[in-house]
Amino acid sequence: MGEPFRYYLRVRYGECDAQKVVFNSRYGDYIDLACTEFLRALGFEDALVNGTLDYQVVKQTVEWKAPARFDQVLELSVRALRLGNTSFTLETEFRVARSENRVAAAETVYVMVDSRSLKKTVLPESFRAALRHSAEGLSTNHAGSSP
Amino acid sequence: MGEPFRYYLRVRYGECDAQKVVFNSRYGDYIDLACTEFLRALGFEDALVNGTLDYQVVKQTVEWKAPARFDQVLELSVRALRLGNTSFTLETEFRVARSENRVAAAETVYVMVDSRSLKKTVLPESFRAALRHSAEGLSTNHAGSSP
Amino acid sequence: MGEPFRYYLRVRYGECDAQKVVFNSRYGDYIDLACTEFLRALGFEDALVNGTLDYQVVKQTVEWKAPARFDQVLELSVRALRLGNTSFTLETEFRVARSENRVAAAETVYVMVDSRSLKKTVLPESFRAALRHSAEGLSTNHAGSSP
Amino acid sequence: MGEPFRYYLRVRYGECDAQKVVFNSRYGDYIDLACTEFLRALGFEDALVNGTLDYQVVKQTVEWKAPARFDQVLELSVRALRLGNTSFTLETEFRVARSENRVAAAETVYVMVDSRSLKKTVLPESFRAALRHSAEGLSTNHAGSSP
Repeated sequence: MGEPFRYYLRVRYGECDAQKVVFNSRYGDYIDLACTEFLRALGFEDALVNGTLDYQVVKQTVEWKAPARFDQVLELSVRALRLGNTSFTLETEFRVARSENRVAAAETVYVMVDSRSLKKTVLPESFRAALRHSAEGLSTNHAGSSP
Repeated sequence: MGEPFRYYLRVRYGECDAQKVVFNSRYGDYIDLACTEFLRALGFEDALVNGTLDYQVVKQTVEWKAPARFDQVLELSVRALRLGNTSFTLETEFRVARSENRVAAAETVYVMVDSRSLKKTVLPESFRAALRHSAEGLSTNHAGSSP
Repeated sequence: MGEPFRYYLRVRYGECDAQKVVFNSRYGDYIDLACTEFLRALGFEDALVNGTLDYQVVKQTVEWKAPARFDQVLELSVRALRLGNTSFTLETEFRVARSENRVAAAETVYVMVDSRSLKKTVLPESFRAALRHSAEGLSTNHAGSSP
Repeated sequence: MGEPFRYYLRVRYGECDAQKVVFNSRYGDYIDLACTEFLRALGFEDALVNGTLDYQVVKQTVEWKAPARFDQVLELSVRALRLGNTSFTLETEFRVARSENRVAAAETVYVMVDSRSLKKTVLPESFRAALRHSAEGLSTNHAGSSP
């Protein structure tokens, strides 16, 4: 199994709260960024920008280990965990860059939607193949029980 | 000249930064809220929500007098200052509620746009009349030099 | 078991994204608001504002059922689910106000921290009693296995 | 007069609104980022992070020329415009990267504050020298009329 995709970001001052740490809901923003860049790296840049590839978050769990602070550079590792018929699940791990200090870990379930109706739609085959290829050993959803 | 429209909001924890005061760009959010409620109070609720009344900010100046803090209730007073052919200017004054403590003052120039093309469009007559009525003594733009 | 605490908010324009629905990470902001108001309603207003009661989110799961849109009023119901030695878990259910339309549901685990060191600290007895009282039938953590 | 400092950022999805353009108050966030990086480039990184260099925005004017969209890379050029006794003014120009397309221009007045009391304090001499050096031809404030 290969290396996960990595995305780096620097914590912005306005993302920190009065405790001088990143406010918890900013992690949702960070996950969105890392997932977007993950999909861009898989070759879906045009589809993301012109909106032919559209998805919504249907479930997200974030677990925090340690706070992140202003100006720290965070490393976000993204891996595909599961593929359903209309859904896919990405794992995001947060570390302080150039360290082993874990900050947080998240699991996000996305459902592919039609960009006009916002109704669920089947994962395009090219998309499914790219995600599967990015994650050998990925537990694909043979039973189709995911949404 | 009548009383200005007033809107109240409580400062959210996540809107404060490591200095424990409201982060400056959050004032842009607050102004947007107060302006929306001002237009709702003038009778444009449906038009705002269904998007037939659409506008963009083209210029905004904010001046801060004192910081605002978590959990304070702020009073925002909104007045129409100027009406152009396609633009309108609103003044927003921020005070700590139930006090004379000034927090900030802003002047925002909006341009009316077509909700599909986002191109400039003339202020609807009903809109112009409502703003003018809301602000007797309003300096209307006879010379048409505003956008 | 009594009625849960309810908090109402109107969706802000700037909280919606290009899909014209509330962007997912804004739900973290909403949960923070509702939890703050829940604790205020339990009598901890002073402690929240002066910082003697301080806590951090250590785990949060959000599940979305339907999108929320600009200007909708959302009803957030908050219940205490579990009490640990240093942690407490709140459930937040999102509905469109005056309807049965479910929007989302969340479970958030907070850990009480010392406001200076940000280290874990035991739940104050008054706090524990208030949460327990707010939720008869609450599954208290006799075994102490929570953080 | 030398080249201004340049900072590049990619527009995040969550920074765009239902008009599919960057929401106006996000420009305040962008200006904060570019100003922070400008001061880092001048050698004040440590002072920024440990909080010995602290400042607040006292006035900001933003003028928009054209909308910015999801995934565009923006180039922000920062220049020092004026130096007061306790204040400094930075100009920020926004362009779409690798184009001449102007997006916005801003002028921001900052006041240096003591990081504990948040009271106004005189610009440190090293800071004043660095800003002056960064902008030959800078209109320094001989009359001392700035705050």
